[in-house]
Amino acid sequence: MAALTAALGTGSAPFGDPGRLHEEGRRSRVAVEEAREQVAALVGTRPRQVVFTSGGTEAVNAAVWGAGRARPGGASVLAAVEHSSVRDAARRAGPVLEVPVDGLGRLDPTAVDDVLDAAARSGTAPALVHCQLANHEVGTCQPVGAVAEVCRRRGVALHVDACAGAGHLPLDLEDLGADLVSVSAHKLGGPAGVGALVLRRGLRIEPLVVGGDQERARRAGIENVAGIVGFGAAAAVLCAPGRLDAEAAEARRRSDGLLAAATAVGGVAVLGDPEDRAPHIVCVAVEGVEAEAVLLGLDGAGVAAHSGSACSSESLAPSPVLEAMGVDAERSLRLSVGWSTTDDDVAAFAVAFPGVVASLRALRG
Amino acid sequence: MAALTAALGTGSAPFGDPGRLHEEGRRSRVAVEEAREQVAALVGTRPRQVVFTSGGTEAVNAAVWGAGRARPGGASVLAAVEHSSVRDAARRAGPVLEVPVDGLGRLDPTAVDDVLDAAARSGTAPALVHCQLANHEVGTCQPVGAVAEVCRRRGVALHVDACAGAGHLPLDLEDLGADLVSVSAHKLGGPAGVGALVLRRGLRIEPLVVGGDQERARRAGIENVAGIVGFGAAAAVLCAPGRLDAEAAEARRRSDGLLAAATAVGGVAVLGDPEDRAPHIVCVAVEGVEAEAVLLGLDGAGVAAHSGSACSSESLAPSPVLEAMGVDAERSLRLSVGWSTTDDDVAAFAVAFPGVVASLRALRG
Repeated sequence: MAALTAALGTGSAPFGDPGRLHEEGRRSRVAVEEAREQVAALVGTRPRQVVFTSGGTEAVNAAVWGAGRARPGGASVLAAVEHSSVRDAARRAGPVLEVPVDGLGRLDPTAVDDVLDAAARSGTAPALVHCQLANHEVGTCQPVGAVAEVCRRRGVALHVDACAGAGHLPLDLEDLGADLVSVSAHKLGGPAGVGALVLRRGLRIEPLVVGGDQERARRAGIENVAGIVGFGAAAAVLCAPGRLDAEAAEARRRSDGLLAAATAVGGVAVLGDPEDRAPHIVCVAVEGVEAEAVLLGLDGAGVAAHSGSACSSESLAPSPVLEAMGVDAERSLRLSVGWSTTDDDVAAFAVAFPGVVASLRALRG
Repeated sequence: MAALTAALGTGSAPFGDPGRLHEEGRRSRVAVEEAREQVAALVGTRPRQVVFTSGGTEAVNAAVWGAGRARPGGASVLAAVEHSSVRDAARRAGPVLEVPVDGLGRLDPTAVDDVLDAAARSGTAPALVHCQLANHEVGTCQPVGAVAEVCRRRGVALHVDACAGAGHLPLDLEDLGADLVSVSAHKLGGPAGVGALVLRRGLRIEPLVVGGDQERARRAGIENVAGIVGFGAAAAVLCAPGRLDAEAAEARRRSDGLLAAATAVGGVAVLGDPEDRAPHIVCVAVEGVEAEAVLLGLDGAGVAAHSGSACSSESLAPSPVLEAMGVDAERSLRLSVGWSTTDDDVAAFAVAFPGVVASLRALRG
């Protein structure tokens, strides 16, 4: 009987509040915990280390908040190629010590060590080091294992923003030894509006969102049960034997196809590392045209792409990622492929792109 | 063509990232903005005042955060009957000045004025006054209009936690004049994991979750498009002419039926105001038995209810709401009705409740 749906008030059938004792609540609890196991399996950790959030951005904010509460005002160590959520949350929490990157957007673990060494000499203890798994705009992989090693040796906590890489690159968080890892569901085939903050075994941090004991008192608020179940389902698909590797190989083949088609046009350069990158992301610079105009032209031809310039198209500021790499930010185009991308889509891009670029260049005279 | 689903990476069809320029993104943007209009209409404000969040708890946390950043360390003024999200977030932000309530859980606007007066005399300027629309455990309505009047006169910002009341009680936020209002979708028939923070016209506050320009740079992170659309749909249903009043009348009739059935058993007392209350919530104290045992007994009989003791059943602490009212916290039972509740459900409760209570009392000897 649906009965007095006290927990969810009204209308949330078929899920009840997983924090409640009644039957509907227990059914939701089972579904949430199954999803937790699925997500934990995908990233190589134990279910209890997984804290569900409303997305990667909240997970990043919660990581920064928790580390900051442990060392109030402590500095953050990060490269300027980190996602805006990492940069903005870190800037709000305290001073930021910047790690340089090379022209491909990659940092050197030695540079992290140098920054931590300088901080130690000046008597400041950083609250948190950030190192993304793969870059969200150009795809370049970071040497997270080596950075984790440096952080362990220096006794500084490490946050890995795995939002762009998780589900596309193999991950074994128990092995990696990061303290905090952020993951986003929609970047790996799950729904938008759900993510996870993964904590190292034994680590307790103060929650960003307070006021309830959900998620073992690590994130308050009723669980987005449907979203969490969708996240789990996507993770489970990728956990099937060989599936992640197979998806990655397909993504790689298609994104290589995009790169080949794009660079066949004159004045188009690859941004980021064309080899050691997330298999689904490539980024190109197109000489003499604006990224927005190319996007609109591609969209008119039925190809959805986006500018590599920011988390949100609402922002017109130049990309800090490309700036850090020394690239003209206004002319980059990020292209990525997903499970729904077909070879026909790649072929459609290959057909549309040269014409779009040529007509835009012609307009400019 | 689904094409290169750059914005959402993979698998979030049929919705694209609403922040993107491509066609899938624009479709999502239209859906999100339509939902914003629907939610705004339900609570009586303009769409641009509505900031979507991951739920009521995040909305409350964001309200407290924003007010705290405007007046760092400023005190919060609130009654102990407020939801744990309000209490916990306020406690974290600075000192808390408590407003007393009566035995029904209601505060007196004069008491708010007195607290603000004492604060002014001691030279402290509170950051925020909290006043819930209706109580989440016992249903008692608060005199929010009169409290808003006091706050306006004193020049202190007011946050109204409308999570338990919105969608059940008429709301006209433009008329009410609160600065910040929190709303939860799942409490009014929408999905869990989505809510809104409604801002007074012209009010800008610093966001809790940073790192992206979504929601006009007031809440970072990709939008939970499906959840937001569900929220809008629930709001739209309630906005149909006469619908909210009709739902409220039905809820009132059924919850009155629950109260009558419960109080027909000896040693059962009504908690909260039986008249001036949210129409869907009633709460009773059952002499001589534990609430958890009654819940389990009712669940065995197919009736989902919950203890009125906390946001989450994981917490075994006594209810601050009932404590503030001077009620023994271990023996209360919150009963609420929703759109899926039928007269048969009420009848089932009336049949099951006396037996459950009698057998539990018999067990105790």
